[in-house]
Amino acid sequence: MNCELISVGTEILLGDILNSNVQFLSKELASLGINVMRHTTVGDNEARLLKALDDAFTVCQAVILTGGLGPTPDDLTKETCCKYFGLELKEDGEILNKIESYFSLKGISPMPRCNKKQALVPTVGRVLSNNNGTAPGFILEKDGKIIVILPGPPKEMIPMYRESVKPYLMQFTNEVIVSHSIRTFGIGESYMSERVEDLLEGCNPTVAPYAKCGEALLRVTAKAQSEEEAEALMKPLIDEIRSRLGSSIYGIDSESIEETVVAMLKEKGQTVAFAESCTGGLCAKRITDISGASEIFHCGVVSYSNEIKHGILGVKQETLDKYTAVSPETAKEMAEGVRRLANASYGVSLTGYAGPGDSEEVGLIYIAVSSEKETTVKKLLTGHRGKSCRDYNRHVAASNAFNELRLAILNNN
Amino acid sequence: MNCELISVGTEILLGDILNSNVQFLSKELASLGINVMRHTTVGDNEARLLKALDDAFTVCQAVILTGGLGPTPDDLTKETCCKYFGLELKEDGEILNKIESYFSLKGISPMPRCNKKQALVPTVGRVLSNNNGTAPGFILEKDGKIIVILPGPPKEMIPMYRESVKPYLMQFTNEVIVSHSIRTFGIGESYMSERVEDLLEGCNPTVAPYAKCGEALLRVTAKAQSEEEAEALMKPLIDEIRSRLGSSIYGIDSESIEETVVAMLKEKGQTVAFAESCTGGLCAKRITDISGASEIFHCGVVSYSNEIKHGILGVKQETLDKYTAVSPETAKEMAEGVRRLANASYGVSLTGYAGPGDSEEVGLIYIAVSSEKETTVKKLLTGHRGKSCRDYNRHVAASNAFNELRLAILNNN
Repeated sequence: MNCELISVGTEILLGDILNSNVQFLSKELASLGINVMRHTTVGDNEARLLKALDDAFTVCQAVILTGGLGPTPDDLTKETCCKYFGLELKEDGEILNKIESYFSLKGISPMPRCNKKQALVPTVGRVLSNNNGTAPGFILEKDGKIIVILPGPPKEMIPMYRESVKPYLMQFTNEVIVSHSIRTFGIGESYMSERVEDLLEGCNPTVAPYAKCGEALLRVTAKAQSEEEAEALMKPLIDEIRSRLGSSIYGIDSESIEETVVAMLKEKGQTVAFAESCTGGLCAKRITDISGASEIFHCGVVSYSNEIKHGILGVKQETLDKYTAVSPETAKEMAEGVRRLANASYGVSLTGYAGPGDSEEVGLIYIAVSSEKETTVKKLLTGHRGKSCRDYNRHVAASNAFNELRLAILNNN
Repeated sequence: MNCELISVGTEILLGDILNSNVQFLSKELASLGINVMRHTTVGDNEARLLKALDDAFTVCQAVILTGGLGPTPDDLTKETCCKYFGLELKEDGEILNKIESYFSLKGISPMPRCNKKQALVPTVGRVLSNNNGTAPGFILEKDGKIIVILPGPPKEMIPMYRESVKPYLMQFTNEVIVSHSIRTFGIGESYMSERVEDLLEGCNPTVAPYAKCGEALLRVTAKAQSEEEAEALMKPLIDEIRSRLGSSIYGIDSESIEETVVAMLKEKGQTVAFAESCTGGLCAKRITDISGASEIFHCGVVSYSNEIKHGILGVKQETLDKYTAVSPETAKEMAEGVRRLANASYGVSLTGYAGPGDSEEVGLIYIAVSSEKETTVKKLLTGHRGKSCRDYNRHVAASNAFNELRLAILNNN
């Protein structure tokens, strides 16, 4: 089955919104073996949306639309799709009640008038209830064409897709596509690719290299009649890649390097504490993005000033004076200090220059990992300077800290 | 001038990549008065990319493509665009040298062989040098049609756009579009819209409501011959909106509520410290996303366990025993403790249940703000539970903490 994703919203074309919906839906559809042929974004404009629907149905059987179901007059996705299929809209009393009680649960009564529009539903088709907002979704079918309409906000769209759309789409797929992501850290995309160059030629399973944010990964994908069959096709290939790339691989299908680290610490019953300067809490934030991190992470200190480095983490004043805050010596004492303070198995610290700016020191970051056995310090040069380097440098520094921690845990085995 | 953005990459259609390029480019083009008519994403597929170019040029004069300039054989954007315009490719010695020295600066020598492909350039057209990666970009013109080709990684694409593409595009615009975003906190989109309903009808300037992540904003946009003229058109409207929405407005054109808070603290020469439990460092991370935050933020403590709440922040053991870690009493002592520890003007704390999960307490978060004058505690109910509520709850909790801090700063005037 071929499918196109159409996002509707002038705010997307104006750049007000980062469109994460298409990423989520693309991943989900790929896992069902549904080919996503194209992503299209059009404004809140009837004529252009009608044309997009027409174009999409020339190569696709199904179109999934997100956005334009809001309460304001410019929202017209539902109306335009109904026009395209020649369907009427009428007010649904049950849905109106639901929208009213959604507002009253939030302590808002009476309901804002404009939300009444969201209770209009097509006379034919399936209405998908929205448990996280006011706009219902829809599945419309006509002459073998399928239109799925979902609300724009991800917190409404994602549960609605999972609860209603995925089960509906599963009837149309007779093959499965299974993918595994082999994630590496510390080697670039080019080198990673060259080490497995001969493996990139296959067509089932396929191997494709990707790079993002200082990491490189290989995506191995197989098509088959069943999941077991697909896994069997991929196993020898994955084993071969594992043996070629060794400990550069931090995880297979791991969401992130921090997820790998959390799993490793959990398995060993160990804990980590972070002392962060240039990353300003990003390591703590990323590790606590993972539900259940409380088991292995109890304490983070963001020590943005020298007073806090000295007063809370116990970095010696003479170290700060002699070597400055951005030095291997300070990084070492920060890691040791936070490990002691938190009584943790590992203390990890970061101090450096995240930028922005073009001065020579921007991108220089020291990362220390302290364990019972030893404290190691890594000097990282991100190679990025300039006006917009700050986010990248902070992200890459935090990722490197997780990788250093990973290597320390492996080493302490 | 009308423009279409085409993103190229099978990895985007598979959902491996969140496409942030189109957001960046859309914002930039809007500011130049260039209409972005559509975003399209196609895979690394010559036929479909040729069709996308054809479609785009039926309504647009310019097409900006991102992605598909990598070193691997599946990257074919440059090749396909040259085919579309009937241009040849040849190796450019200077670019080859540049790519080689890029690798040697990173300590990688010899250059991976596959990168040689990136030194192929069209025989006609402009080559845009890449100071942050290996793939050059291109501007191609033919019969009044313009193709701009940029690399996919944002850290390469963004500087290349700013340095080369923006100055090039400015010659084509003879009107300016100026927008202001009026950002509110604490009132929903529906209520915000109803209070300004009569103002949403205008056509120059326009006012459009948007909602995201617990915030609602109004975007006011004017078209004119000059920036001054556009500003003059908008001024009375913005004044009217200000007077209707009052202190619900936290900023006009502020990037985020944390940016507003940083600016307020800087102006007053005050500082803030954070003690975070459920948000796990997110407040510290978000405030240090802003360059220059070190002036107003010195210390954050992520106190994920009771031991750290007691041992570092000085929350009384009896408070933890009697009221538990998630209570207004603990929140109050956390905020007071971190303020004392950091010797800051304000101490802000968060403790609650971010989820995931469906239990009743998920979404309950206490936020305390301590100043010299007083400590206030707010009980936040995010209204979000379930499997995927964690990110949302953490984000909204942090945003609410910034808003509480903002209100405290206003109050202390």
